[in-house]
Amino acid sequence: MNIPFGGAKGGVVCNPKELSRGELERMTRRYTSEIINEIGPEKDIPAPDVGTDGTVMAWIFDTYSMNKGHSVLGVVTGKPLNVGGSLGRLEATARGCLYTIQEAVRKKEKRLEGLTVAVQGFGNVGSFLARFLAEEGAKVVAVSDSSAGLYNPKGIDVPAALAHKQETGTLRGLRGADEITNEELLLVDCDVLAPCALEQVITQDNADKIKASIICEGANGPITPTADEILDDRGVMILPDILANAGGVVVSYFEWVQGLQEYFWKEPEVNSKLRDIVTRAFNETWHLQQERQTSMRSAAYGVAVGRVAEATVTRGLYP
Amino acid sequence: MNIPFGGAKGGVVCNPKELSRGELERMTRRYTSEIINEIGPEKDIPAPDVGTDGTVMAWIFDTYSMNKGHSVLGVVTGKPLNVGGSLGRLEATARGCLYTIQEAVRKKEKRLEGLTVAVQGFGNVGSFLARFLAEEGAKVVAVSDSSAGLYNPKGIDVPAALAHKQETGTLRGLRGADEITNEELLLVDCDVLAPCALEQVITQDNADKIKASIICEGANGPITPTADEILDDRGVMILPDILANAGGVVVSYFEWVQGLQEYFWKEPEVNSKLRDIVTRAFNETWHLQQERQTSMRSAAYGVAVGRVAEATVTRGLYP
Amino acid sequence: MNIPFGGAKGGVVCNPKELSRGELERMTRRYTSEIINEIGPEKDIPAPDVGTDGTVMAWIFDTYSMNKGHSVLGVVTGKPLNVGGSLGRLEATARGCLYTIQEAVRKKEKRLEGLTVAVQGFGNVGSFLARFLAEEGAKVVAVSDSSAGLYNPKGIDVPAALAHKQETGTLRGLRGADEITNEELLLVDCDVLAPCALEQVITQDNADKIKASIICEGANGPITPTADEILDDRGVMILPDILANAGGVVVSYFEWVQGLQEYFWKEPEVNSKLRDIVTRAFNETWHLQQERQTSMRSAAYGVAVGRVAEATVTRGLYP
Amino acid sequence: MNIPFGGAKGGVVCNPKELSRGELERMTRRYTSEIINEIGPEKDIPAPDVGTDGTVMAWIFDTYSMNKGHSVLGVVTGKPLNVGGSLGRLEATARGCLYTIQEAVRKKEKRLEGLTVAVQGFGNVGSFLARFLAEEGAKVVAVSDSSAGLYNPKGIDVPAALAHKQETGTLRGLRGADEITNEELLLVDCDVLAPCALEQVITQDNADKIKASIICEGANGPITPTADEILDDRGVMILPDILANAGGVVVSYFEWVQGLQEYFWKEPEVNSKLRDIVTRAFNETWHLQQERQTSMRSAAYGVAVGRVAEATVTRGLYP
Amino acid sequence: MNIPFGGAKGGVVCNPKELSRGELERMTRRYTSEIINEIGPEKDIPAPDVGTDGTVMAWIFDTYSMNKGHSVLGVVTGKPLNVGGSLGRLEATARGCLYTIQEAVRKKEKRLEGLTVAVQGFGNVGSFLARFLAEEGAKVVAVSDSSAGLYNPKGIDVPAALAHKQETGTLRGLRGADEITNEELLLVDCDVLAPCALEQVITQDNADKIKASIICEGANGPITPTADEILDDRGVMILPDILANAGGVVVSYFEWVQGLQEYFWKEPEVNSKLRDIVTRAFNETWHLQQERQTSMRSAAYGVAVGRVAEATVTRGLYP
Amino acid sequence: MNIPFGGAKGGVVCNPKELSRGELERMTRRYTSEIINEIGPEKDIPAPDVGTDGTVMAWIFDTYSMNKGHSVLGVVTGKPLNVGGSLGRLEATARGCLYTIQEAVRKKEKRLEGLTVAVQGFGNVGSFLARFLAEEGAKVVAVSDSSAGLYNPKGIDVPAALAHKQETGTLRGLRGADEITNEELLLVDCDVLAPCALEQVITQDNADKIKASIICEGANGPITPTADEILDDRGVMILPDILANAGGVVVSYFEWVQGLQEYFWKEPEVNSKLRDIVTRAFNETWHLQQERQTSMRSAAYGVAVGRVAEATVTRGLYP
Repeated sequence: MNIPFGGAKGGVVCNPKELSRGELERMTRRYTSEIINEIGPEKDIPAPDVGTDGTVMAWIFDTYSMNKGHSVLGVVTGKPLNVGGSLGRLEATARGCLYTIQEAVRKKEKRLEGLTVAVQGFGNVGSFLARFLAEEGAKVVAVSDSSAGLYNPKGIDVPAALAHKQETGTLRGLRGADEITNEELLLVDCDVLAPCALEQVITQDNADKIKASIICEGANGPITPTADEILDDRGVMILPDILANAGGVVVSYFEWVQGLQEYFWKEPEVNSKLRDIVTRAFNETWHLQQERQTSMRSAAYGVAVGRVAEATVTRGLYP
Repeated sequence: MNIPFGGAKGGVVCNPKELSRGELERMTRRYTSEIINEIGPEKDIPAPDVGTDGTVMAWIFDTYSMNKGHSVLGVVTGKPLNVGGSLGRLEATARGCLYTIQEAVRKKEKRLEGLTVAVQGFGNVGSFLARFLAEEGAKVVAVSDSSAGLYNPKGIDVPAALAHKQETGTLRGLRGADEITNEELLLVDCDVLAPCALEQVITQDNADKIKASIICEGANGPITPTADEILDDRGVMILPDILANAGGVVVSYFEWVQGLQEYFWKEPEVNSKLRDIVTRAFNETWHLQQERQTSMRSAAYGVAVGRVAEATVTRGLYP
Repeated sequence: MNIPFGGAKGGVVCNPKELSRGELERMTRRYTSEIINEIGPEKDIPAPDVGTDGTVMAWIFDTYSMNKGHSVLGVVTGKPLNVGGSLGRLEATARGCLYTIQEAVRKKEKRLEGLTVAVQGFGNVGSFLARFLAEEGAKVVAVSDSSAGLYNPKGIDVPAALAHKQETGTLRGLRGADEITNEELLLVDCDVLAPCALEQVITQDNADKIKASIICEGANGPITPTADEILDDRGVMILPDILANAGGVVVSYFEWVQGLQEYFWKEPEVNSKLRDIVTRAFNETWHLQQERQTSMRSAAYGVAVGRVAEATVTRGLYP
Repeated sequence: MNIPFGGAKGGVVCNPKELSRGELERMTRRYTSEIINEIGPEKDIPAPDVGTDGTVMAWIFDTYSMNKGHSVLGVVTGKPLNVGGSLGRLEATARGCLYTIQEAVRKKEKRLEGLTVAVQGFGNVGSFLARFLAEEGAKVVAVSDSSAGLYNPKGIDVPAALAHKQETGTLRGLRGADEITNEELLLVDCDVLAPCALEQVITQDNADKIKASIICEGANGPITPTADEILDDRGVMILPDILANAGGVVVSYFEWVQGLQEYFWKEPEVNSKLRDIVTRAFNETWHLQQERQTSMRSAAYGVAVGRVAEATVTRGLYP
Repeated sequence: MNIPFGGAKGGVVCNPKELSRGELERMTRRYTSEIINEIGPEKDIPAPDVGTDGTVMAWIFDTYSMNKGHSVLGVVTGKPLNVGGSLGRLEATARGCLYTIQEAVRKKEKRLEGLTVAVQGFGNVGSFLARFLAEEGAKVVAVSDSSAGLYNPKGIDVPAALAHKQETGTLRGLRGADEITNEELLLVDCDVLAPCALEQVITQDNADKIKASIICEGANGPITPTADEILDDRGVMILPDILANAGGVVVSYFEWVQGLQEYFWKEPEVNSKLRDIVTRAFNETWHLQQERQTSMRSAAYGVAVGRVAEATVTRGLYP
Repeated sequence: MNIPFGGAKGGVVCNPKELSRGELERMTRRYTSEIINEIGPEKDIPAPDVGTDGTVMAWIFDTYSMNKGHSVLGVVTGKPLNVGGSLGRLEATARGCLYTIQEAVRKKEKRLEGLTVAVQGFGNVGSFLARFLAEEGAKVVAVSDSSAGLYNPKGIDVPAALAHKQETGTLRGLRGADEITNEELLLVDCDVLAPCALEQVITQDNADKIKASIICEGANGPITPTADEILDDRGVMILPDILANAGGVVVSYFEWVQGLQEYFWKEPEVNSKLRDIVTRAFNETWHLQQERQTSMRSAAYGVAVGRVAEATVTRGLYP
């Protein structure tokens, strides 16, 4: 994404669901204390992933800050809004998907308005993506959650689906659409398919039956390598996860910047800056893909690895 | 105001008017030296109040910076412009009053243009407020300073009043208006009354005679608690000081942010960001006031206390 | 320029052209190590000058950062883009010249469009300046590099000249213009003359033959003091180097600010902020020049020295 | 005492006896966290006083050290031996008393061996002092604790008294001595009287009945100012508390030095260094007392205040 | 050993013998740079072990010091004498063995003078130990190196053996003693046996044939657990390695202390302090062994684990 | 001297005698403030030289300490005793001379007792040296100050000379000795000559007339290079200044160590440690002188340069 914000993973081997809130807090604070020399606004900046959430980030922030003697907003991202989180972070991944789809459609010299879309998953990514796409004029023909899929070739009423989900906790039972399975959703007739739920849902078994000409990987790794090849041969444009769903990380970066500046941006500003970065990254990928006549996925890796390599050569190895 | 910038007070027991400039400077530098571990851009950030001014802030800034070995702009606010102060800070409190009055008028579904206003006090707050209100089209029917009040139901020529004050040091003698007392000013017929001079000028003695339907507390505490109740019962909308005159603190916060970023904003940018923050704070207060059917003052305290309480719960108590 | 970014010079006595790349790197890293307590984002911030370049800055950045244990973007400016440089830095000096010329023309109540310009030098400053002036509608009647000058009173095709220079490494041989010498270039009939190559090219020998009414010092010191007096007496408006070619330093300052904020600006934003600062500086100089009835050069020094003196008085001398 | 180790007091308003161990630990850690910028091996170094003990010091040490990321032995004194305490600290105050008595006896050109001594109090100061005096050959004719006093003009068997106290928790019931009250103890016939229990036990009521010619203030303030004058007039040599019972502070200082050096002294080394310092302080006081013909108490204050004044003049006042 | 100096191991997976000196130096400096936040005089202090030596320590010291901007003697131990090493470090392990043997002999109410000793190994530990024992009057009846063993029941001329080894690089060929194997050496008739060469040389196969009544483990782990039991049952006193050969670590600790103090001790002072610590540790072990009626080895572990446990309880667990 | 304490010089160009005390203090504090990043207990440690004294050192100490927020004893040496100076520093240079003379005499297999000595200069070095030599039993046959020289082949009464100088400010007029000039003093019949006053007093003009067989350079550079050669050829043993008068620097080093340890040594301890270091340095020089058959001066340089070279090779050059 060409932002000064790298990545790594670390954690504690435990099942947070088996810990009391008190145990979880004490463990988080002890862990923070143990790694306190390795983290910091200028070093490594934790962010939540599976098993942790905003509350855990707030504890890390508080433990670190109490240790330093003042609030250090830049030490973690994914903080709740009331202790220095960023506006727009919740919807950031979905927005990133939207912007890559918009760019992809533009490259195909089409307009998003009127295109048909199927979105698998109705969580933080899928539900917001469906809403944003509908707002932009696309026709969302299929959505699904873990309990049910819904299909209506004339378009689903997304606000109604969001409200139904909100009220009942499930998509099942929404009127004005036929029920389908999550597997069937992938194969419906649509221009854009956005698998935003689980890994490895598009495999060699169904890859040749997919009708969409653009697939946006809202989830991490929804397409197996074999399926990837099949789709590529068929000329389907795949928007790879490291590009399509990087919106969350970009807004984590924004949260860090806002913390460093002690100044917070309004939501439209966050979204606009996100769009700039996603669009730039899309186009760098696109140009490399055109130049090397390869897939978007290979091009995305090419851009990323090339950037690190180039910087390493420029800086030199020392000591 | 929902800015990451808290507040406390501290000082030296002395009468600065009895000290020579040299004594004042040495005392300021010694005091800074004594509290140097407690202040800093990430800890506690002094700002001028009664008895100190920009020059004293410059000495604090210089003492701290010489101690650290480089200029630390973020250690104090209220600095003179030539050593890192912020544009727009002088007029900031008056602007904050203006913005809250504008929002209040909007909630009453009126327009500021043509409304009648009386402004008590013609110092840093009152004179700028009168000017800004006149520029926005309001009819300023009464102004006053410590020497005299002026009243003209058809509107006072504010630029002329500013020029007269500038030249003569007093409002007394301005032509085109009747002279009144400061007490009478509070009771003139007007839509908006802005007491911007002293504490406790509106009391149980005159509260029921006030004709304005909006009172904007430009000064700190111009209304006694008893008067507050009387006015509240009468349906007068009071814009409480912690909301109405917070503009100065907000621009102190902006000065700190600019110092941290080592990048300075143009004056319109300062004003626009100030408007955003004041307007947001007004509306949060308004919504709570509506929801709880209470006064704006109670609602303002409710918002403030609620924000701190919520953040404390989120962070937890450690150690 | 009224930016919080001072200046000084330092270096190593050596001929970098006689050193191997390895020697240059080791010497740079050792030198950085020796001065490491004197430099830093809050202290002294190196930038490239004759004999050093972006690569050397990258080594300083890397040495300093490895010493501190994390990337410290703000420690040097002039870094290559892939390790934290600023967009627009390359063209910054030329843009600064453009903006001062535009302001000067405006003061003369003329429009840049249609004015004739001669630009001496076709390196980082001259070539970009010629391009920008042409894009703004000026008629570039003469350009030159170290090998040749070109003159066409009807205007030179600047994009063609840039392409020719790019391809052949020289301006010589461009069609559609007459060849002249660098000395002749200074004397051609034009409204604006921009010497952007060497020091001391306008002397008492040719000062009275210059036909331009505005001279923009793109180079450092192209006019000797004696020539300066002659031109001043003749009423030629000289845009002095400390004002006209400060664009590079200003964008160095921007690079530092972006590094501190860990957030990078898009190129139009850089240019727009540069224009604001250059225009403000021009006008402060202009006003002092008008007030004191002196030259722009004297006024520029007056503004600069006055600013430092005023800040020194405000801060006081301590200890 | 002429050691680079000053003094001040601070604390938390609470009754530690009403707190559970967990509450006491949490409160101690929070308090340490709040004052963490004020304490440290180079700043202020807490030590236990009434209401705190070695365990509380260990918590302060641990909280501070965990905050800094490594064990900081020098941050508190009075630590238990197993986390960096000093050998000999427990008996240090009593040893200090012994050394001052020995010096005083020497000035009177007598030998401690065979002198009669009465010791009031049998806690950390009195019991050790009785033991040390007996070991040095003095005849301890009276001892007491809060429950009882014992008197035997032929000398009490101190090891037996220590054993009895150890076993029964009281001196009462020890054979081979007559029971007396604490008040009577002060008036027994003896050469040296050492009140090591409570404040203000020697008053204008009993001062003229005291038979000892040397009084060693093992407790803080056992003699009232009026009694002090009476005794002084009678020619009794009073070894004042700030001199006589400073042994504990001196070994606190030694504990700090050992922590800074990360090297621990053997007990005889501690005692020998303590003797050096106490003896030097006694003699400085003695010389001033001789020179000014005043009391030992006045002389002790004179030495202390003079030392601070002299150093202040030498250093100057800055800023 | 009751010193404030813990232990851990870390390293780089490589074969230093396959690296050039330049590669070794660059790798050491890079490694130091990578772990620089984890080491330091107050954190973790490297010391040489197999595969590293004084030169490598000097590079770590230099890299760390250049990074910090001044010499930090306390960051590593085992430094060469000319960059801050300690006198007496080379012979420290052997001296530690000597002192434990002396204490053991004393407990048996014997005198070292005249006792017979066999020493296996003639490297840094064995050769110095043989020399020290001979100097103390013991009769060294057998010594060995990897090439040969020597036996003379009337005592070997140790100075001659040292000179022979020095000259020829081997013990083989020394006159005045019979040649034996390393296995035979273990079984010769002697009071004290000191295996100072390899691990696991005393096993269940030879344990019951050993004639010595005291075994001093100069090497790490020369006795297998099974052999340990056999010897214990037979009443042989084993001086376990963690006690007997800790002299090297103790003098590493001394080197650190000297570095912190910037003051260096003379060799007799080093040896005397070493003797104090080793003797104290021996006696603490001895007392626990007596109290629990267990082996010296179990007692040594008991003392060590007990000390850590006790300190942990005293400090508490935080956070 | 083999102590971890290097040397360099720096200062302010001014004549302190022309400054008022206030000017001197302010200038010292400003200078300290300017170089504050370059000095410190771990970096560069100022000490007094010509034109500065203990008071100036106290100001440096105070300025630095106030800047850091706590007393930093190790930042300067030569401090007055009441702010952390070392006992024995005043006499240290003279003591160093004494110890080198004692070693030199020993090498000649003589005893100091009864040898005749002439001492030129009666300031901090000469007067103490005369006293120490007399106390050790040498016969001081000649002394001098700037006003007069005294000679008595039977020995001068040194205590009387010290008292006379103390009382009258001059040696002139002391009874019991003949008056001579400073030039004559150098040529008197004696075993040891100690020029402790000015530079270059022994030249090619008088070198061959000197009768002493040992010359101890108490002053800096009292012997010119040519004279040095003449004396060397004549077999006179010269104790060169870098060895003979290094006692002052060694006790500066001790003052620093005591400050770091926050623990102060008694005077005999200072003297004893000084003797150890001077004696060791003498012997290292002696051995090299013997080995290389050169002068003591060359050997002293050889030892010094060799030590630095060896450490540089051991540490390597990085970066």
